[in-house]
Formats: sequence, structure tokens, C-alpha cells
Amino acid sequence: MKTRLFTPGPTPVPEETLLELAKPVGYHRSAEAKAILKEVSELLKEVFRTANPVVTLTSSGTGGMEAAVTSLLAANEKAILLSAGRWGERWKGILKAHAANTHIVSVPYGKAVTPEMLATALKEHPDAGAVFATLSETSTGVGHDIQAFGKLVAATPAVLVVDGISGLGAMECRTDEWNIDVVVSGSQKAFMLPPGLAYVSVSEKAKKKMDATSVRGFYFDLRRSLAKIAESDTPFTPANTLIKAQLVSLKRMKAEGMEALWARHAKVAAATRAAVQAMGLELFAERPNNALTVIHVPSGVDGSGTLKAMEKTHGYKLADGQDDMKGKIWRLSHMGYVDAFDVLGAIAALELTLSATGFKVTVGAGVAAFQKAMAG
Amino acid sequence: MKTRLFTPGPTPVPEETLLELAKPVGYHRSAEAKAILKEVSELLKEVFRTANPVVTLTSSGTGGMEAAVTSLLAANEKAILLSAGRWGERWKGILKAHAANTHIVSVPYGKAVTPEMLATALKEHPDAGAVFATLSETSTGVGHDIQAFGKLVAATPAVLVVDGISGLGAMECRTDEWNIDVVVSGSQKAFMLPPGLAYVSVSEKAKKKMDATSVRGFYFDLRRSLAKIAESDTPFTPANTLIKAQLVSLKRMKAEGMEALWARHAKVAAATRAAVQAMGLELFAERPNNALTVIHVPSGVDGSGTLKAMEKTHGYKLADGQDDMKGKIWRLSHMGYVDAFDVLGAIAALELTLSATGFKVTVGAGVAAFQKAMAG
Repeated sequence: MKTRLFTPGPTPVPEETLLELAKPVGYHRSAEAKAILKEVSELLKEVFRTANPVVTLTSSGTGGMEAAVTSLLAANEKAILLSAGRWGERWKGILKAHAANTHIVSVPYGKAVTPEMLATALKEHPDAGAVFATLSETSTGVGHDIQAFGKLVAATPAVLVVDGISGLGAMECRTDEWNIDVVVSGSQKAFMLPPGLAYVSVSEKAKKKMDATSVRGFYFDLRRSLAKIAESDTPFTPANTLIKAQLVSLKRMKAEGMEALWARHAKVAAATRAAVQAMGLELFAERPNNALTVIHVPSGVDGSGTLKAMEKTHGYKLADGQDDMKGKIWRLSHMGYVDAFDVLGAIAALELTLSATGFKVTVGAGVAAFQKAMAG
Repeated sequence: MKTRLFTPGPTPVPEETLLELAKPVGYHRSAEAKAILKEVSELLKEVFRTANPVVTLTSSGTGGMEAAVTSLLAANEKAILLSAGRWGERWKGILKAHAANTHIVSVPYGKAVTPEMLATALKEHPDAGAVFATLSETSTGVGHDIQAFGKLVAATPAVLVVDGISGLGAMECRTDEWNIDVVVSGSQKAFMLPPGLAYVSVSEKAKKKMDATSVRGFYFDLRRSLAKIAESDTPFTPANTLIKAQLVSLKRMKAEGMEALWARHAKVAAATRAAVQAMGLELFAERPNNALTVIHVPSGVDGSGTLKAMEKTHGYKLADGQDDMKGKIWRLSHMGYVDAFDVLGAIAALELTLSATGFKVTVGAGVAAFQKAMAG
């Protein structure tokens, strides 16, 4: 049986990128390695839509998030956290571990934090040094209005730090134009690479704040990474085979073009949402984003069991809800190296699985709605 | 021209491991992924010679070192650092970033810290909570008498933390038998994998100390990793393709057997040292280790230029000295997926390069000495 990955990270990796990973390993301090990192860094800037440096860390996305926290905040410094799910809670955990004085604005799972909520928080906490937000809340499928957040935070002394780990490269996110000071992303989402690398952009405003903040870490001290990336180098041995392979995937992204990438994801996401609803299912996110579609498990249906059956019978691997959400939602990723025809297959597999388990679904309705949305 | 890597990290990766890296990416929370991590963890314990857990972190070795520091030491806690080169200084930098009260025992580059020096430091600082040491000081080629260090530290309340990043898996290191509480290693040295993963073993004594120490970090908090590894899982998205490939290389290591691996490295290292001396060159390390051989650049010879010429003419990539040592030493790695015939080639390339640059060398003397040592 063919197996197909539709989890919101890791995502499928292009064949030419996988083959790059099978090449012999080189020395990471050679001129060739620096030339590769230089090209990767320039292409990352294009994906981030920033003229500022983007550093590459060898870690998961969480490592990139911790780098932002320890490099930007002094102990006990006030921070505003906008939390709409598990990844907002990840910010909370990191902020707590580093003794930040965090004011949390949180909404229930499935909802989005609004710009109005942020405006109120900024008024109540004018001494906040940073605002932490999430572009794509992968645990619920919600996307945030980062552009509006950016406008509000830009008018204050605080910096805006955005977890763009899943989302960046799939959905519109204009770092500089939207006044985002720090964006964190990861290799295993829209960047079409296996896990292992985190990317962090740093604005002038953030850089100034870092330079005025005392050092609290070593490996994740962004000042070290920024000093090295200026010479196309890294402070510590990087996962250099992943960096070399990232170049291959970045070239593919550049060839498609960022606006075209966003448009493709938007179209496939809209078609997926139409298909889901045509199958009589409900979307979970009130403000769905284009990186993944999160589906409410209908009452009476065994959520986790359905996913297992779909994987076993058809080879399609979707993601279950995490922690308390387990069995309550299905998460279908359509970001990165996944096109409309791939997603059509996933819709077909879900239809067949639901039909086989006795759920009332008009077989064919989902894929027909998907096709109509794509043709429209 | 064929190119061959002899830097002390990254090191060559077996072909079957490289091919594993070209396989499609899977979901890191699947039962299959957990089974792989379980097998990797068990095999890592065999390499470490420990019955205690070994956690896998997605980072360079430095990340593993920082994990030990932040998980074990409270702010301002006293530590003893045994420093014999650049990697001792790496401990120093991490300890400083985390406000440790560090008593440094240091020796000049090329020398080894002796057990007597440690005994004195332990007597003078009975309140030290941890001792930090280096198994293979890759910047100089020195190996430390970790067994003796372990005996001394075991008799105190302090824990012994060893940077075994380059060295572990190539030279004898018996974690439990030698009373080493924490050993840090990395994938890109004797483990025959590209960079990207760090491994950390934690003794019962270290675990107890961690549990009594307040949390100071998030991504590198070893308590999180230990809790997860007990279920063959990780707290954050791991570089799962590297883990899967690590299994392939670990199986190769197990098939050879740890004692056989150590013996092979010892024999090749001895042959390399014999060859170097037969070429009229001097060893840099007073207590050379079996992971790499570090050669004093003879006076009048352009150290960096010679390495560049050897790489350009013969495709052999050795490592230069780092920082102040640049141009003063040559570093030839013979750890991991490198056998005697590979190293013989490197000796031959060095002979030819030196001969071409006018250095007085009897062409053939080095390779003959190497062969004699191998036959002996």
C-alpha cells in the first residue's frame, strides 16, 4: 500500500531534496558551506519578506521560540501573550521557564485572538517589552490577523514576536510590511524539508532590544547567531546536510514564487473547506488558515479510530487532536510539497472511511465540491 | 577528483545510512517512530556503556552541553572546570552564560589536565556541585584520564559531566564503570551520521541533583527529555530522519562490537602516530587520543597553505587549528566510518604534499611506518 503524509509537520519532502540528503557529508566551515548558507539565508529572507537577517538554528521550532524569549526579555520583564491553543501554551511554557511576567490574553480552542483584545492589553500594559503571537495555531487550524497585530504593536515600544512555524511559506505573512519584529519558523512545515532546523528573523527594533538585554543563554543567544550569519557562518556545528537540502527546496519555492505559493495554498485550502462541508462535516476554526484544515469530529464518530482505519485501509496519515483535543478533531495539512491532486486523494480517503464506518455521507460529494472549488 | 573528509566532525557517513536519509519522511509521533527511537536509545546505551537513559536532542553537541549545565546547576552554584583547549573553553562560555561560580583548572594547549590537579581542586572546593571535563579535546588531540577523574569525583557529592562529543564510540569510555554522571556526545563524530543530534546520558546521582535544582530552561531541560524517553518519545519535534538513519549506523557499530571498535581506533591511531613521526613530524598532544591525530606544523612550513594544497591537489580535507591555533597544527580524524586503508591514503597525500612544498620528507617513510604498525 502507498502511504501518504498529511500531518501538519512533518510534511512531504520533494524527491530532489531527499536525494540531496543522500550525498556525502562535507565540512561545515568550508568556503562551499558558507556559500550554501549565504544562498539559503538570502532565499529565507525572500520567504519571510524581510530585508533583515534570518538566522538558521539546529533545533526544532520550539528552540527558535526559546531563542526569541531569552534573547529579548530580561528576567521578570513584562510580556503579553496572545494564546489560542496548544502553541500559544508553548509560548507560555517557555516564558514561565524564563521567569517572564506574562499577561495572557487567551481564547478557547477554535477561536482567534482579535486585534481589539490586543489593543486593550497594550493599553493596560504599556510597560510590556514584547508581544508573543501565533500565525497558524496548528492545534486548532486558526489563523491570526498578524497584520493588524503588527500595526498595534508598532505604535508601542514593545516588539512583536510571531510563531510562524507552521504557516510561514504557506500563508501570506509579510514580515517587514506588517511590522513583525521576530518571526520564528521551522524546516518541516511549508519549507519542504525534514525536521531539524529553525529559522528566526530579527528586525532592527528587536536587535536594539536584544543588545540592551543581558545574556541569559548560550546556544539560543540570537546575538551570537546574528554576528555569525553576517559572515554566512554559524556559532555551532549546524545540521549542514539539512541546510544543503534546504537550498534545493528553497529554489523550488522561489521558482514557484511567494505570491503564487500563497495563492496555491489559499485555493487548495478553500477547496478543502468546501469539500469538508459538502461531506456534512464542520470546520473547527472560526478563522481558518491556509496551512491546514481542522475538522470537528461529528458526534457519535470515534475520532481516533477513524484516523487509524483510514491509515490502515488507505495509507493516508492525518493528525489527531493533541492532548485534550484527542479524538475530537482531525487535522489535514495541505502545506508545502502537497498539491490539489494530493489533497483530493485525502478527501476521497476520508469519504470512503466515513462511509465504511456507517457515517451518513454522500460518497462523491466531497471530491465533487473540491473539484468545483478548484475549477471556480 | 575524489574528495575525502578527514575533519574531526563531520566525519564520513556509511552509504547505507546516507540512503536511509533519502527515504520519505514519516510522522514523528507514530508507533513506528517510537519503536525506532526505542531501538536507537537501547543501542546508544550500549555505546555509552550505561544502564541509565540516554536522551536524544535535536541540536549540536554544544546544545547537549548547555542542557547539562542548565539542568544540573543552580545560578551561582560552584563548579570545577578542567580545561585543556577550545572545548574546555566551550564549557567555560556556557557556565558563564548561566552564572555559574566556576573554578577553572586549565593547562596549555597540547597538555592534559591530570588527576592530581582534579584532586587538589576537589579538596579546595568541597562545595562544588559539578565537575566538567572533556574526553577528547579535539582542538589539541589530547585525551583525558576520565577513569581516574571518575574515581575522584565519585567520592564527593559533585557530579562528573564529560564532553564526549568527539571521542565517544571511538575511544574507550565506560560511563557506568567509570562513574561518569553525564556524558554528552554528538551524531557527527564516531556515530557515523551527519550533524544535528546530541546524546546525553544521565546517572541516578545526576538525576537526583536535577530534581533538586530549579528549572532554568525549556528546550534543554533534561528532565523533560528524560520523562519522554521513558516512553520512547521526545518533548519537541525531533530530527526524525536523522534518528532513523542513526539506527542504521548504530547497527553497524553494534555489529562490529564496542570493544572491537575501540581496538580498531586504537590500532589505526597508533599507526597514524607512527607514520607522522616517521615523516619527521611531531605530535602536538602530550596524551594523544584515538579519535584524531594532531600534528605540529614544522617551523618554516605554511600550515594553512599546506592543507589547502593537499585538498586542491589530492582531495584530502584535514582540519586546520582553530582560532589562535590556525596554521600551527594539522588535525587528522580517524574516527567513525574510516578504516586503516582510508587513513593510509591520508598519510600518502600528506607525504606527497609536504614533498612537493620542499619539506624534507622521505617519500614512503610514512606509509611504510603505518603499514608496519598495522601488521604488528
